[in-house]
Amino acid sequence: MSIYLHDIPLSQAQARIREALQDANLWCLLGTETIPLDENALGRVTTEPIWALVSSPHYHASAMDGFAIIAENTNGAQPSSPISFVLEVNSAQYVDTGDPLPEWANAVIPIENVESLDHNYQITKDIRGPKSIRIRAAVPPWSHVRPLGEDIVATQLVLPAGHTLRPADLGAIAASGHQNIAVARKPKVAILPTGSELVPIGSKLKSGDILEYNSLVMAAQIKTMGGEPIRYPITKDNFDSICERVQEAVQTHDLVLLNAGSSAGAEDFSAKVVEKLGTLLVHGVAVRPGHPVILGVIARSRVAATKQSPTHKEIASGEIAPRNDMVPILGVPGYPVSAALTVDIFVEPIIAKWLGRRPHELPTEMATLTRKLVSPAGDDDYVRVAVGKVGDKLLAAPLSRGAGVITSLVQADGLALIPSGVQGLEAGEQVKVHLYRSKAEIEKTIFCIGSHDMTLDLLAQFLAEHDRRFASANVGSQGGLVALRRGEAHLAGSHLLNPVTGEYNISYIRQYMPNIPVKVIALVGRDQGLIVKQGNPRGIKNLGDLSSKNVQFMNRQRGAGTRVLLDYQLNLMGMSSDSILGYAQEEYTHLGVAAAIASGRADCGLGIAAAAQALDLDFVPLFQERYDLVIPKQFTDDDLLAPLFELLTDRGFQEAVSQLKGYDVSVMGTVILED
Amino acid sequence: MSIYLHDIPLSQAQARIREALQDANLWCLLGTETIPLDENALGRVTTEPIWALVSSPHYHASAMDGFAIIAENTNGAQPSSPISFVLEVNSAQYVDTGDPLPEWANAVIPIENVESLDHNYQITKDIRGPKSIRIRAAVPPWSHVRPLGEDIVATQLVLPAGHTLRPADLGAIAASGHQNIAVARKPKVAILPTGSELVPIGSKLKSGDILEYNSLVMAAQIKTMGGEPIRYPITKDNFDSICERVQEAVQTHDLVLLNAGSSAGAEDFSAKVVEKLGTLLVHGVAVRPGHPVILGVIARSRVAATKQSPTHKEIASGEIAPRNDMVPILGVPGYPVSAALTVDIFVEPIIAKWLGRRPHELPTEMATLTRKLVSPAGDDDYVRVAVGKVGDKLLAAPLSRGAGVITSLVQADGLALIPSGVQGLEAGEQVKVHLYRSKAEIEKTIFCIGSHDMTLDLLAQFLAEHDRRFASANVGSQGGLVALRRGEAHLAGSHLLNPVTGEYNISYIRQYMPNIPVKVIALVGRDQGLIVKQGNPRGIKNLGDLSSKNVQFMNRQRGAGTRVLLDYQLNLMGMSSDSILGYAQEEYTHLGVAAAIASGRADCGLGIAAAAQALDLDFVPLFQERYDLVIPKQFTDDDLLAPLFELLTDRGFQEAVSQLKGYDVSVMGTVILED
Repeated sequence: MSIYLHDIPLSQAQARIREALQDANLWCLLGTETIPLDENALGRVTTEPIWALVSSPHYHASAMDGFAIIAENTNGAQPSSPISFVLEVNSAQYVDTGDPLPEWANAVIPIENVESLDHNYQITKDIRGPKSIRIRAAVPPWSHVRPLGEDIVATQLVLPAGHTLRPADLGAIAASGHQNIAVARKPKVAILPTGSELVPIGSKLKSGDILEYNSLVMAAQIKTMGGEPIRYPITKDNFDSICERVQEAVQTHDLVLLNAGSSAGAEDFSAKVVEKLGTLLVHGVAVRPGHPVILGVIARSRVAATKQSPTHKEIASGEIAPRNDMVPILGVPGYPVSAALTVDIFVEPIIAKWLGRRPHELPTEMATLTRKLVSPAGDDDYVRVAVGKVGDKLLAAPLSRGAGVITSLVQADGLALIPSGVQGLEAGEQVKVHLYRSKAEIEKTIFCIGSHDMTLDLLAQFLAEHDRRFASANVGSQGGLVALRRGEAHLAGSHLLNPVTGEYNISYIRQYMPNIPVKVIALVGRDQGLIVKQGNPRGIKNLGDLSSKNVQFMNRQRGAGTRVLLDYQLNLMGMSSDSILGYAQEEYTHLGVAAAIASGRADCGLGIAAAAQALDLDFVPLFQERYDLVIPKQFTDDDLLAPLFELLTDRGFQEAVSQLKGYDVSVMGTVILED
Repeated sequence: MSIYLHDIPLSQAQARIREALQDANLWCLLGTETIPLDENALGRVTTEPIWALVSSPHYHASAMDGFAIIAENTNGAQPSSPISFVLEVNSAQYVDTGDPLPEWANAVIPIENVESLDHNYQITKDIRGPKSIRIRAAVPPWSHVRPLGEDIVATQLVLPAGHTLRPADLGAIAASGHQNIAVARKPKVAILPTGSELVPIGSKLKSGDILEYNSLVMAAQIKTMGGEPIRYPITKDNFDSICERVQEAVQTHDLVLLNAGSSAGAEDFSAKVVEKLGTLLVHGVAVRPGHPVILGVIARSRVAATKQSPTHKEIASGEIAPRNDMVPILGVPGYPVSAALTVDIFVEPIIAKWLGRRPHELPTEMATLTRKLVSPAGDDDYVRVAVGKVGDKLLAAPLSRGAGVITSLVQADGLALIPSGVQGLEAGEQVKVHLYRSKAEIEKTIFCIGSHDMTLDLLAQFLAEHDRRFASANVGSQGGLVALRRGEAHLAGSHLLNPVTGEYNISYIRQYMPNIPVKVIALVGRDQGLIVKQGNPRGIKNLGDLSSKNVQFMNRQRGAGTRVLLDYQLNLMGMSSDSILGYAQEEYTHLGVAAAIASGRADCGLGIAAAAQALDLDFVPLFQERYDLVIPKQFTDDDLLAPLFELLTDRGFQEAVSQLKGYDVSVMGTVILED
């Protein structure tokens, strides 16, 4: 059997790559280039301190439109005893803002503080005597003058090396007399997707095909970091082909990212490729997600290096970076979340070093964990979390931990790090979260929990237009009520049928949220029905057909709302579950039921229209269930939720929902309960 | 006399431009375009919700390399009683990560949990019976399987409209089956610099020339906001030329920024140009810096509009935005800080609306003001501040308020807003600061105050390489000691001579910082001497020559350290100040003295070598003064300052300082006093 890769601690892996780069003389600025000072310099990193070549202003300048005068001559001017000045040298002279102060003058009186003795002329630069002006207040020397060097003094430091250029910086550099600027050369990063199962974005998919989008995400990450990504086409899982591609990439890039094949399976060639072409430094890092990470270095072939190596003069001039013989290579795991986090963790510090800038750092906040997290003790574990402020508490709600769930990165407001040595954290414990979003954005987030429904997606869309973010976590209806009791969300979506009374939600609210005053508002009526194959070949019309037509049924697991509904309806009909072929077969989601039907394992199952639609199946509506929003009274008057309540009576929103298949908006906004 | 512009409140100005854009049907998404889904989509804004076209995974996929089995068949497997499976359909089958689960299977056992019964074969996909495997633990259904739709369910909302795309978003969009994406068209913004005094970046400057770099800063701002800036060449101050340029720009752009000429001076044409070509909505906004702001709208000429107007089909397809007849124009004030802030305040909300995204918002923190701020009661006043954490206090130190001082924007860590209605704030009061930097960066900032010296620029540069920011505020030596007493900085630079004892700093520290234990460390010895014209035509060699050679002297103001030094030296020499021609003439800075000499108003003055160097003057060194760092004991062991102390004994730093003219590093690091 294959020997599995051997994980080493994250800090050790980072140290090993740093040492290898130091040995190769690559743990430093990669190179510098001189570029013109224009808006494309934005975001580039300075490689040298920028010293001012000229002062700004480079002369004493008038700060206002007005009259240059000698301040001492204004002494004694008062409202009751004005002083007059003839417009001539050594007395007064008109100046526009920015004009040089005449050599004999040492102050400017703004035009609005001056009276003209002669009303029939207009003030312009060309005024000469015998006109005159009158003032009624003395001015101190240097009033309304921008002295030479007020902004910048020639020879002063304008910006340090290692500074990432922002708009105002470009102005200051220009003001200090520069026309060009030395910045760090952008590291060229080759991104090589490999895998026989990979197909390009936009391909028509067949079973087993995997869309290759990691290279896209990684290229965007490299761009964000200030590097220059180059995406290669997909290489099949073939040792020789991958070797050839890597060899090629190494010749013309500063870093190679080899995606997937980094584990130890039958077709995982990355480690062997690195071993063959260079030195394998690390195979496996104790970090989750991402652990099958490979780090290595490969030498450029001497021929290529010689052919392209620059002269010493070119290197000294800073126009061309010295070519180094070694090129680092990173074997990036294939799961998209692992790939993205691996690039953040391992590549960002290298690019930062190469550009000479400070590594990007996310702001951190302490937050309360909404549910228990288990973590392997030996790993640094990065958990994607949704972050919201509910009452006074900043909450971190763990999202899907699946390394294949790219949407968990999209929905994440931050990353909670569970360091190696910690085996897990209990709900309610404080956890440090590295935030992707600003606190202001997080404070505009409505935190919704409970059962998922497509209407919530639309609600999110509409709320975005009202300056609110809507983050919803799917923990099922019961889970949502429990979370509300613990103060972990602003509201919950619930569709819990009481099988005895046929009433929705209220008895469950009393059971799971005792003594918490709530408001319950109906969101939608939602069709439940039978998901059947396209064209409904078995002609199934109702639950009765399940026993009479000998059809294969697929059930939901015990406890699921849909199963409660089925049992309630069978009971009303006096029908026995024994009469249904497949009643004991269980799937865990609406979509699981739909997939079973699509694949032919079953003829039908009970579920919602959306699940049928997602897999191009047909749907026979049977019952309508009510989906409610449950809101603790403490939040009902909160300004945060106001736009949500407005939307429930908004025509546009109601129309958008009614266009979804299987939804009834007539109940929307009806208050079901108010404590 | 010219009538001055009439300021209206900021909120009213913003409302007026919003209404004008609403009237022109321009207060909405500007247009949409479909682009390929690649890394160039980064930072673009979605204009439609993105719904999933396919599920991901689109089949039940193995989550590990291992064996697909039927979970129920593993029941009863235990360490002591293993169960064996033959490798065949309905029993066990090898799968790689990502492979489809065979239809008959419902779980995967990872390869590392499986024993081979037959050691002489290697596991590959092509294995067929009669090989077999053995397991020693039961697995539940769906273990190590990524069920269909685990990440994305076809038809679900992947991203809302109005979302700015990040790297992971691109992956999720690709995973959900899209190959192209609808994003907001980038608004085209014309930037028109006008002014006869303007010269392009890099020009050789003569008196009165002003480097035109506002268009560069504004273009970079527009780029940062997501617009497409187009910079026009400089137009001279000529009404007809400006009209022509504006007319031209209006035809092909969505917004026109007309820079300078927005005030009411003799050559300020912007308001008249807008009035002639369109409608002037606002002239003057009560906001500082920036108040002579102009807002207006201009109609595109009908000919051009007709010629280029798209068909309804093109508009409906979203490929071409409807052409609107009205184009907003903003008259931007000429001072660089005013220009930049005007663009932030007025243009960012328009671009945000046009792109359909949330306006950019800076994070805010409350900070303690280090000195009194006076503000006109009627204005919204934006004050650039340096922000640092000293002890437990977050401090905001106001920087230069001059609208011409672009370096104040470069040095600013944030903007403190003094709203209209507030006349000013006292030192020690809390002020809300909109932060340009993260809290983490601010917490790595060493806050230095007092007398400025070029060595501090070098120190900043060296500290940047040790993960520290060094922010220094120039308030003079005495001001620095007072600030330290108030707990407003980590250290102060001081060179205060006691004219009685000839000793530096200590007596002043006891006077201004009583009962505060300090450490005083010498930074440098610094030459003071006579700044003279190039080539020293009057042959001035010492202070004695000031009386004997009938030279014109330029003095510093009373209280300046350099004046104290002069008087101390005159006293030692027994020389009377009356004997110096120009002793009563005062300048306020080293550079002011140098400028007076450069312009011929004086022959010499006392100052530092750097001031002479800045204006290409000569320097006659006479005395050396000591420049010390004063550090309250509470900070001397702080980790924050450790790299600073290390640098004082660092060879590289000492060498860099000794290469500056007029500096002596032999005293560097000497402890002068330690309480």
